Amino acid sequence: MIEARDFAALREVFREWPPADLAEVILDLPEDEQVIVFRVLPAALAADVFEYIGIEEQQQLLRAMTHEQVVAILNEMSPDDRTALLEELPSAAARQLIRLLTPDERRVATSLLGYPEDSVGRLMTPDFIAVKEDWTVQRVLDYVREYGRDSETLNFVYVVDDRGKLIDDVRMREFLLRPLTTKVSDIRDRNFAALNATDSQQDALNVFRKYDRAALPVVDSNGVLVGIVTSDDMLDVAEEEATEDIQKLGGSEALDAPYLTIRFPHMIRKRAPWLVILFLSEMLTATAMGFFSDEIARAVVLALFVPLIISSGGNSGSQATTIVIRAMALGEVVLRDWWKVMRREVFSGLALGVILGTIGFLRIAVWSQLFHLYGPHWPLIGVTIFFSLIGVVMWGTLSGSMLPFALRRVGLDPATASAPFVATLVDVTGLIIYFTVAFLILRGTLL
Amino acid sequence: MIEARDFAALREVFREWPPADLAEVILDLPEDEQVIVFRVLPAALAADVFEYIGIEEQQQLLRAMTHEQVVAILNEMSPDDRTALLEELPSAAARQLIRLLTPDERRVATSLLGYPEDSVGRLMTPDFIAVKEDWTVQRVLDYVREYGRDSETLNFVYVVDDRGKLIDDVRMREFLLRPLTTKVSDIRDRNFAALNATDSQQDALNVFRKYDRAALPVVDSNGVLVGIVTSDDMLDVAEEEATEDIQKLGGSEALDAPYLTIRFPHMIRKRAPWLVILFLSEMLTATAMGFFSDEIARAVVLALFVPLIISSGGNSGSQATTIVIRAMALGEVVLRDWWKVMRREVFSGLALGVILGTIGFLRIAVWSQLFHLYGPHWPLIGVTIFFSLIGVVMWGTLSGSMLPFALRRVGLDPATASAPFVATLVDVTGLIIYFTVAFLILRGTLL
Repeated sequence: MIEARDFAALREVFREWPPADLAEVILDLPEDEQVIVFRVLPAALAADVFEYIGIEEQQQLLRAMTHEQVVAILNEMSPDDRTALLEELPSAAARQLIRLLTPDERRVATSLLGYPEDSVGRLMTPDFIAVKEDWTVQRVLDYVREYGRDSETLNFVYVVDDRGKLIDDVRMREFLLRPLTTKVSDIRDRNFAALNATDSQQDALNVFRKYDRAALPVVDSNGVLVGIVTSDDMLDVAEEEATEDIQKLGGSEALDAPYLTIRFPHMIRKRAPWLVILFLSEMLTATAMGFFSDEIARAVVLALFVPLIISSGGNSGSQATTIVIRAMALGEVVLRDWWKVMRREVFSGLALGVILGTIGFLRIAVWSQLFHLYGPHWPLIGVTIFFSLIGVVMWGTLSGSMLPFALRRVGLDPATASAPFVATLVDVTGLIIYFTVAFLILRGTLL
Repeated sequence: MIEARDFAALREVFREWPPADLAEVILDLPEDEQVIVFRVLPAALAADVFEYIGIEEQQQLLRAMTHEQVVAILNEMSPDDRTALLEELPSAAARQLIRLLTPDERRVATSLLGYPEDSVGRLMTPDFIAVKEDWTVQRVLDYVREYGRDSETLNFVYVVDDRGKLIDDVRMREFLLRPLTTKVSDIRDRNFAALNATDSQQDALNVFRKYDRAALPVVDSNGVLVGIVTSDDMLDVAEEEATEDIQKLGGSEALDAPYLTIRFPHMIRKRAPWLVILFLSEMLTATAMGFFSDEIARAVVLALFVPLIISSGGNSGSQATTIVIRAMALGEVVLRDWWKVMRREVFSGLALGVILGTIGFLRIAVWSQLFHLYGPHWPLIGVTIFFSLIGVVMWGTLSGSMLPFALRRVGLDPATASAPFVATLVDVTGLIIYFTVAFLILRGTLL
């Protein structure tokens, strides 16, 4: 239809589609055809579809569109999605776009951009329904009928005082069920939950988790109602936070872009620094091993178990650090719980260490009987492995669980204590524990 | 007030509170007082508060409550939260509770429990507003006024045909804005998104992500509207999925309970199996090292770099596997993208390997000049380290990125390819790569 330039038919087909699906189809077209499709769509639908497109593609489209198209779409977009787009643009470009807005929309856009990045203010939309305490149900319903078109949710109506201060939230269903002459003041229950515009999005997530609401009102520092945040925005925040944590736990910086679309040099820049830092720290193992090279030369058998010992510490440390970091992110564990966590992890480490140590000892015993691999002193080697594993695993769980607390204490992101980071830390200490135990047990026999 | 048995005052104070906060306060009380507070609350509020309490505490409370209290609360609870409670109970206990419900509520409860675990059916609530195509706006609004009380959302009204088949969703605002005589059929736009009751909750999450809706309708296999799912439930699903993935990535089974409340033996049972599996696999490193013990005896210097080499492979593998697993969970990468991912990771591995290899070579060069640590053949050792690192890092990124695809291909959870799992896998191969490169380069000189 695009080729036949049958735009009327195209418009007729597309207006029936859900905007999210339409966005997918449009993104599969070549760029010049994307612009054409946007031109044939009715302005409101065009803006809806535009909101479902990724921010990078939005920028490309805006550059390709005519001035009128840009004006129409920007003014029709919902304020929270527009904020998301504007904050990604260089400030000169953002200012230029803001100038295209109608005075009303411009005021909204600039006020939203005034809130700090990653704050609730950047997520909220100022499209809500606010009523006064002395209104009747009839007046509220008339008001909704007149101004409800743009509201993001109709489940809640917010009650404000004369200065715009939020004093209650009332479910729309309460209005639907009462006689039309009932006053708002008779319906309201005086309890409500609200977010602060300067709260971090992570804090907002915890509030949503607690209250299980589809939307929450946002107030400024004076308690004045300035917007609402809906739980579908929170879903995006939760996913993003989890993605960042997971990528950090895997030992790279957060990629901040989908894997298949992030540019290659960009991805290497996100991954190389941590690998280099880990590599530099791990060099200490070569130094530590250097100190024990005489022992190794005398008893090569000791070197054979080095990877086994240090990786066990690394694995138990990875477990502990990821469990603690996730519990922190969910708010299950807070800073002052460090002592409880430490106690748990000391015992976990002991239990896990004894399990692995026993398996290690048995392996040496059985292999010695079967293949006579470890010479006549195998029981001593077995005991060395047993106690080394207990020490290394305990050290692993302990440092893995405490490092996130230490990082949070000094104001850093606990997720920086990634699994590879803890593993590296434990490797160096693990070697020292291993060779010290070996020295104590094998002195006079093998060493 | 509880001690003074002033229940009227208690009731007066508590009825003003948000249920989520009330739940927190109640959980801090001793158990007998918890039951008292529930007794004084109005039935509807008691059920609301009860929904905000964790499932384990809910079970304890039910055991402590009187028969009448249990009946009142169960019948007032919203169906989705009640399903969550019932499905955790032993089936005999669940049946007993279901028998306490009114016939209407019992029918709802048993039908929800009929859906497979982790399916959309278990999440949905049958409280929605459904209207017919030939109704007028007036009739719809009257209907909402009469039956809207229980509906979980008023943002959408669902249009069904005579057999209950979902044929459209219409925003409530559309009804509020039209003349009262307009027919539903004139308003509807024939496009809607719906979930299937047997869809997995993970799939539902992807649909919510795509459409950015506060609620979505759920249909059965015949297209009949059977319920709705709200995005605040999806927030819980997203968090749970992320927690499971993170804990698996850290190399333990999903704990399925908050860290501080999970019982100690239970936690050890979740953590020990993977540590043991990793330990048994890692034993192969001792075997591999055993094959090269002659080489180690001749050139102890080789042993010094073992931890450095193998951990570099493990770290790059951890990075790759976590990035790929997260991209899969978000639907950014699907099974058929394996080839694209493989190509990216081969080049990533090469780039990262060259970076680390260069640093490794420089370290050996500098240390040799400063401390004369590595003897006259240090350039050869440096070259060995350089090429080993490239090989090991490439192997790490490649196996780390491909393992999740292989696991998903055979129907397993990709997150099983945890960071420690990949690290262990890479350790054994890393040793073989290292000693092979060493043998090729150092033959005739050190070896």
